[in-house]
Amino acid sequence: MRRFILYSRTGKTAPFNGSLLEAGRLDVIHQCIISAMFLSHSIRRDVEFHVFLYGSPNPPLHIIIDGSSLYDVRTDEATWNKILNEILSGHPHQGIFMRKEGIENYVETLKKIFVLNEKGKDIKEFERKDLDDASFIIGDQVGLPIKFEKFVRRLGANELSLGKKRYLASSVINIINYSLDRLMV
Amino acid sequence: MRRFILYSRTGKTAPFNGSLLEAGRLDVIHQCIISAMFLSHSIRRDVEFHVFLYGSPNPPLHIIIDGSSLYDVRTDEATWNKILNEILSGHPHQGIFMRKEGIENYVETLKKIFVLNEKGKDIKEFERKDLDDASFIIGDQVGLPIKFEKFVRRLGANELSLGKKRYLASSVINIINYSLDRLMV
Repeated sequence: MRRFILYSRTGKTAPFNGSLLEAGRLDVIHQCIISAMFLSHSIRRDVEFHVFLYGSPNPPLHIIIDGSSLYDVRTDEATWNKILNEILSGHPHQGIFMRKEGIENYVETLKKIFVLNEKGKDIKEFERKDLDDASFIIGDQVGLPIKFEKFVRRLGANELSLGKKRYLASSVINIINYSLDRLMV
Repeated sequence: MRRFILYSRTGKTAPFNGSLLEAGRLDVIHQCIISAMFLSHSIRRDVEFHVFLYGSPNPPLHIIIDGSSLYDVRTDEATWNKILNEILSGHPHQGIFMRKEGIENYVETLKKIFVLNEKGKDIKEFERKDLDDASFIIGDQVGLPIKFEKFVRRLGANELSLGKKRYLASSVINIINYSLDRLMV
């Protein structure tokens, strides 16, 4: 199992009209969901995707996508505009749930937490046992708040490096998924 | 320099109304453009993205995105719905052009062509010099037509393996970009 945890500073926390972009950059969340959950014509059943929304008017909210039970989804933006609106209206979708919860409460319950840091240990140097059942915490387009980064460091989070480039959050998830795929075989 | 070449069997070849999904799965093209061209808060200046559209009513069309001159773009779907409509209407955007041309004509002019094949040479086994200035040909949600695959094999295309999983086209591009980034440093 692998778990991606996204911190969204701006994602709307109520039903919205208009585009995902206009709803506090929920378009970034959509891109991350595609990278985390989808293979070609199949869903990654061993992945959980968590996003914590800190935008107005009702933060924080925790949305959970559980690959083991996710059904009836496609990769396009309109599909996820509809689903995220339904979830934010309190109507769950198969494999997608919402809780009224902040990220600190949730992350405290996890073991094997990883955060990105260019100067951390290179993802190429990890072995399978290090990354099995790991949780990867990822910032949105702005990055993680410093206060929260300090919090996860106090919890003993491991620092993971993907090299010198700074990638989009959705690319980070793709790279981690791929790196783990290659370790697991 | 690196070059991604996408074969879209269904992408619309005229201005369209409605979503990218409805325009012959141009949503897949949008996802691929993001993976190919964008880093966090910057554009990959050393990447060219080419898509050949074979949908109705005017196939084939060749759209070229040149990272070295691309400006005034964002990652969201609405931005690319507008840009692709403008391009298909004959109005170029900075760094984005259209030509009336089929994929065979273009690919014939290239050296160092790569196609994906699970049984090809593992991307981890290539050296920098092998992949510098390479062109990667990628299928859409349906995959490459067999006739075209035979054509590129006759041209001497190299077979590249990303392991055993079958990835979304946009993930394939992310994985190749990342693998090259790590080789280039």
